[in-house]
Amino acid sequence: LNDSTSTDAGRAIPRLEDFPHRTTITMRLGDHDHQNHVNNVVYGVYFESSRVLFMRETLAGYDWGTTGFVVARLEINFVRELHWPGDVIAVCGVERLGSKSVTYSQAVFHEGVCAAHGRTTMVLIDRTTRKSTALADPMIARFKTRMVRSGA
Amino acid sequence: LNDSTSTDAGRAIPRLEDFPHRTTITMRLGDHDHQNHVNNVVYGVYFESSRVLFMRETLAGYDWGTTGFVVARLEINFVRELHWPGDVIAVCGVERLGSKSVTYSQAVFHEGVCAAHGRTTMVLIDRTTRKSTALADPMIARFKTRMVRSGA
Amino acid sequence: LNDSTSTDAGRAIPRLEDFPHRTTITMRLGDHDHQNHVNNVVYGVYFESSRVLFMRETLAGYDWGTTGFVVARLEINFVRELHWPGDVIAVCGVERLGSKSVTYSQAVFHEGVCAAHGRTTMVLIDRTTRKSTALADPMIARFKTRMVRSGA
Amino acid sequence: LNDSTSTDAGRAIPRLEDFPHRTTITMRLGDHDHQNHVNNVVYGVYFESSRVLFMRETLAGYDWGTTGFVVARLEINFVRELHWPGDVIAVCGVERLGSKSVTYSQAVFHEGVCAAHGRTTMVLIDRTTRKSTALADPMIARFKTRMVRSGA
Repeated sequence: LNDSTSTDAGRAIPRLEDFPHRTTITMRLGDHDHQNHVNNVVYGVYFESSRVLFMRETLAGYDWGTTGFVVARLEINFVRELHWPGDVIAVCGVERLGSKSVTYSQAVFHEGVCAAHGRTTMVLIDRTTRKSTALADPMIARFKTRMVRSGA
Repeated sequence: LNDSTSTDAGRAIPRLEDFPHRTTITMRLGDHDHQNHVNNVVYGVYFESSRVLFMRETLAGYDWGTTGFVVARLEINFVRELHWPGDVIAVCGVERLGSKSVTYSQAVFHEGVCAAHGRTTMVLIDRTTRKSTALADPMIARFKTRMVRSGA
Repeated sequence: LNDSTSTDAGRAIPRLEDFPHRTTITMRLGDHDHQNHVNNVVYGVYFESSRVLFMRETLAGYDWGTTGFVVARLEINFVRELHWPGDVIAVCGVERLGSKSVTYSQAVFHEGVCAAHGRTTMVLIDRTTRKSTALADPMIARFKTRMVRSGA
Repeated sequence: LNDSTSTDAGRAIPRLEDFPHRTTITMRLGDHDHQNHVNNVVYGVYFESSRVLFMRETLAGYDWGTTGFVVARLEINFVRELHWPGDVIAVCGVERLGSKSVTYSQAVFHEGVCAAHGRTTMVLIDRTTRKSTALADPMIARFKTRMVRSGA
């Protein structure tokens, strides 16, 4: 659906095999909106389950101290309409590491075809002060093992 | 919350008065997630109500024929956490016109402060074929009267 | 919409003035479902905001210790369809007090007409053990000041 | 969680094998609320997918004319808390047939245990006039083949 005016128009549609993690999610009738297709924000709900499962695996046993991640930026490019019933596969990998943030590459596939792809930037914060804080080296090391393949 | 690694980090935070349309939305306890703040995708729900009200006003009485808009791209930058109870003001204006698409600048304010801002690109499609189609001149003329002010 | 076969068919439709508490909630386009009206579970979302505001007011300053309420039963009777845009008024009052639970009478009004009414039973639990526990006398005393008027 | 004060307290908890239809639904992190468990209304979302799949199967090829069902009443009894990640099994069967309505018995199971059970009454309406209308004999005949087993 992307027009040439979109800021991200030149971005290639990612492939399922480029991502280090995948999870299957059942669509629900309640995902449909007044246009009788899956509503745009529901793709963000799929992204969230995928991303948090990915983080739990990647950082299993990691000592968080008082820190945690919050979403700082979300981008979704919608490629295909989705309709219940059926399943989607949501995928996730690390695209970029900042000093205080991580950007995930995320996508949703349906019947082998990419229905949407995007990025989520999460900033590490101190959960008490709610201020951003630096990623520790052990966390960075773990993230580096789970990068999305170039081009995705 | 935006870190310097965010792709949109240099973007100025918009001001309420830069937008030609605003609407008030009550937050709901159900907007909260497991982190006990308004979930990231709920900002997209606020955007949707705001954008569609804006479109209805801007295109009131317009002859759509068999065409309609679908969301092609959504970007949200999260600036502040939100907590129920209370209201937000959601604002919208046209940021850019493509040959087959329109990009809206959107934001959510709470107590006078910007909590999130972003863009939504919508592509005009033929509702039967689901293929993109050109914006007609009368539609473009209307959109041009409701641009967001530069800098927003 | 209630047919004579409904278990609650004989129940009178409540009046706005029978309830000790009311709150206004903006409907959202995202409340619509594939049938292009407000989805049935969204009335439950309205109930939740209304009920928790009511509880906060009624029990303001109350010492909860380690206890809290969880929803044990929800009933909603749907009387009228709702369509965005617009506001609803959600109302709440205490209908019945049990030894370990409270049952609220709840309703949603739109343009002065009841769109849905129902009940929510909440059970007090110990938040650590997740087991039900008795309502303390001071809590009961507060609830008794905020009963729904008979007939509602 | 049901206390003896609940109106439905005497109702037996249904068994998975009593229902003629079952479907598996992935929970989502977004199903969690501020209490960090699956929110009460989300069980209603599970019910909806289950019920509509059941109806589609039971009435496959049925000539609806201008009629359709709307929800007239929803009851949910919450038995156990649910937490993402994981799947639930949602089940459905016909409990009672009225002249203009059908009441479904519905439940949600997690790891073989009932997490919630309830009923949904749907009224047949003429989609143009939005008035209730009688169930036709062929529809009734189909529903009678898919009753929930007594006791459920």
